[in-house]
Amino acid sequence: MFESAELGHAIDDATFKKRAATLRADLLDAQYDLIEKHTFPVIILINGVDGAGKGETVNLLNEWMDTRHIQNHAFGPPTEEESARPLMWRYWRALPPKGKIGVLFGNWYTQPIVGRATSRLSSEALDVEIGRINRFERMLCDEGALVLKFWFHLSKDAQKKRLKALAKSKATRWRVTKTDWKNLARYDRFAKVSERVLRQTSTGDAPWIVLEGADANYRTLTVATQILKSLRERLGATVPKGKAQPHAANVPPLLPSVDGVRILQTLDYQGTRLGKARFEKGLPKMLGRLNALSRRLGDRSVVLVFEGNDAAGKGGTIRRITSALDARQYSVIQVAAPTQEERAQPYLWRFWRHLPGRGRFTIYDRSWYGRVLVERVEGFCAQGAWSRAYSEINDFELQLSTHGVVVVKFWLAVTNDEQLRRFKERETTRFKRFKITDEDWRNRDKWDAYEIAACDMIDRTSTSYAPWTLIEANDKHYARQKALETLCTRLEGSLG
Amino acid sequence: MFESAELGHAIDDATFKKRAATLRADLLDAQYDLIEKHTFPVIILINGVDGAGKGETVNLLNEWMDTRHIQNHAFGPPTEEESARPLMWRYWRALPPKGKIGVLFGNWYTQPIVGRATSRLSSEALDVEIGRINRFERMLCDEGALVLKFWFHLSKDAQKKRLKALAKSKATRWRVTKTDWKNLARYDRFAKVSERVLRQTSTGDAPWIVLEGADANYRTLTVATQILKSLRERLGATVPKGKAQPHAANVPPLLPSVDGVRILQTLDYQGTRLGKARFEKGLPKMLGRLNALSRRLGDRSVVLVFEGNDAAGKGGTIRRITSALDARQYSVIQVAAPTQEERAQPYLWRFWRHLPGRGRFTIYDRSWYGRVLVERVEGFCAQGAWSRAYSEINDFELQLSTHGVVVVKFWLAVTNDEQLRRFKERETTRFKRFKITDEDWRNRDKWDAYEIAACDMIDRTSTSYAPWTLIEANDKHYARQKALETLCTRLEGSLG
Repeated sequence: MFESAELGHAIDDATFKKRAATLRADLLDAQYDLIEKHTFPVIILINGVDGAGKGETVNLLNEWMDTRHIQNHAFGPPTEEESARPLMWRYWRALPPKGKIGVLFGNWYTQPIVGRATSRLSSEALDVEIGRINRFERMLCDEGALVLKFWFHLSKDAQKKRLKALAKSKATRWRVTKTDWKNLARYDRFAKVSERVLRQTSTGDAPWIVLEGADANYRTLTVATQILKSLRERLGATVPKGKAQPHAANVPPLLPSVDGVRILQTLDYQGTRLGKARFEKGLPKMLGRLNALSRRLGDRSVVLVFEGNDAAGKGGTIRRITSALDARQYSVIQVAAPTQEERAQPYLWRFWRHLPGRGRFTIYDRSWYGRVLVERVEGFCAQGAWSRAYSEINDFELQLSTHGVVVVKFWLAVTNDEQLRRFKERETTRFKRFKITDEDWRNRDKWDAYEIAACDMIDRTSTSYAPWTLIEANDKHYARQKALETLCTRLEGSLG
Repeated sequence: MFESAELGHAIDDATFKKRAATLRADLLDAQYDLIEKHTFPVIILINGVDGAGKGETVNLLNEWMDTRHIQNHAFGPPTEEESARPLMWRYWRALPPKGKIGVLFGNWYTQPIVGRATSRLSSEALDVEIGRINRFERMLCDEGALVLKFWFHLSKDAQKKRLKALAKSKATRWRVTKTDWKNLARYDRFAKVSERVLRQTSTGDAPWIVLEGADANYRTLTVATQILKSLRERLGATVPKGKAQPHAANVPPLLPSVDGVRILQTLDYQGTRLGKARFEKGLPKMLGRLNALSRRLGDRSVVLVFEGNDAAGKGGTIRRITSALDARQYSVIQVAAPTQEERAQPYLWRFWRHLPGRGRFTIYDRSWYGRVLVERVEGFCAQGAWSRAYSEINDFELQLSTHGVVVVKFWLAVTNDEQLRRFKERETTRFKRFKITDEDWRNRDKWDAYEIAACDMIDRTSTSYAPWTLIEANDKHYARQKALETLCTRLEGSLG
């Protein structure tokens, strides 16, 4: 895999100068087209052997292009805030928006490779990481990102020579650290692990570009040409107008069950009544139980998801839960239309940014499931986009769960009749009128389409680590009781 | 100060119910007007005695209004990320944007009051804090925010009775913590400190509203009515169209020096030449010196500000500096037009969000000084706004400096002739053309106005803790050398 990158590639200064002048101008033009089009982000990963010129190349790219539209990120050991969340959280935070170029140094490849080379990670664990990375990059590409992965290579001999030369001169000695020498000693081990990772993560969408790092002219021209060519190709691609997405073609249609039986229709809406008096009698004890559990989270955190029919009582249920929690311990995220910044990112980005830290709750009032509910039904995204969202969501929740986050998801279900009753009540009560809009009535007309989407969602995203709890909510007191009870039981199970 | 809040205010349920229905509807209407107008944010501070119903009131407000447009924040002990930055950083992050309501629990008053009541803070230190808070809130109000500060009071007897009642019942016992009893024991001390803080921070713009917290009906009506009235008054205020800002009236004009001598004209642009050869000879040693310093930051962090004439060479200077730093250790912030999210906040907000953590550098390529440079000259903000910005900026940098951040500010100055030469060169070199726009030529026409603004800025914001370094930049090698040398010297001085 590294053979071609040990051939001693070199380009003389005169040739470099000549080609650089054109390249640099062309690259700038392409960057401006990228900014103007504003349709996709460019993610450049910089990885490879120490001393192969990664930093110098990035500096040069920043000199050649308009740095106002380049975001450089380099990652060291995770901070407290970062390590309190799933591994990928800090990389999500660093993703460039549409029209921008993000240069990521020491990215999601670093920890797996270093971990395996230093034997902190087992071979099987590395496989798990590789699978995760592939799915993540696939999602980025599906969401429209151009992902360019550069591997800067140096042969063992070349690396040794370079370190010796730097160490010899007083002026450059500071560039050589103890870690550099240590890594040289582990060269073969690193090379073996790197090759495996590169092989298994070089996909059609996001292949690795391996280059020899010894000669500055050669590596600069290689990287710049590759970026230029990829940008030009992508900018010139004739994407069909409108909502079409890459990979949208050939998506098989999702058919509802042929016998017409849907899980939401099998719930018992009549027999599940509790009433105000009984609910309030049991409430203080239940809140006390939840409060005690909330103090035992330790390093764990909790993500609550509330979805359901319009007017099913999500808000009231959430308020009963939060009344048992310390106000410093939770955030309620009301999911509304995405902001400008959020629209320029993959759709999961705006949910990642609110993930709870250690010992905290984040309560999502509507959530990432909008992708497979309202966006599907209303045609806000292409079929290819919402079809793949099921597995992207499962991946996301698996990362949460693996990190120790307790994920509790509620679907609050009311019958068609009950919803109608509540809508009418909202219209006639002055302080409830804001809760009912024309859009709610329009959505109601699509009751069937929404129900099919919800049933598909439940089937495809109820997992062992993040199951859906369906709540019969025609009686709001029963619904609140069941949500509180479920939450407590899940926490007791998870906290042991 | 608390006398009126110990009178045993109470409102019976029937009266409450009647008034609440109207109030609730009116409040919603006002909230929707706020959202629609989208001209200012509402910041509600909730403070006071434990057990005075703060949490319950906030829960109720969230039930009464449209929670999608309310942001609730409660602050516990600072996280690692928060304590690595000036105290106010986490509050800046929590400020609501225009059109939204932010409810802040355990806000910037908590630490000073608790600190003084527990004697961790001296009386003088408390005064310093109070001054800081007053300036901060003044800035918020000047930037257009509606700031409502509620103090929930309970007499010592009432608090004792309440704790005893809660502790007696098995169902509510969990609500009483050890800290509650401890705080009761320190009631008098807390009351004394609170009174002093309330007295000194009750300003015309943002007065405290003290209310008795014992009766739920009374406190709810009080808070809701106050919010409604303030919102209505503000929404109805006839702010003059255009760029007018509160407090803009009666701002004395800033006159340039009567003898026409300006500091930027007194620089020696001719005698300050270094040349490429001499610069490059000394460079490796200088970079080594900077690199060694960068490893000694420890808990400290560094903020670099680059301002200067167009084409003065900011970018090239920044790249020389970053070439000595570990890529994981710095971020370069290219200040461009603010995003939608940023425009909905006080102007300093977008700079606060990028402050460096422990051991890190943030390099601002253009900065908050845009307020008193381009925004002043181009009339993007009213005179009242940029006039007060000098002291707001000094405050901001004082907070940085007090927190141990090394603030280094460079003004790169070229002469009018030299700028013309560079502009022309940029126009004729294909890969430099992007660096020159019509706007640059237009700005050049206003050379004089920009120079006056820059000189005012230097005079008014060069402080002992964050001085300006003026750099004669007609020779770019000299400029780079002086910037590197200044940075090293400042770091050596600060790190000891």
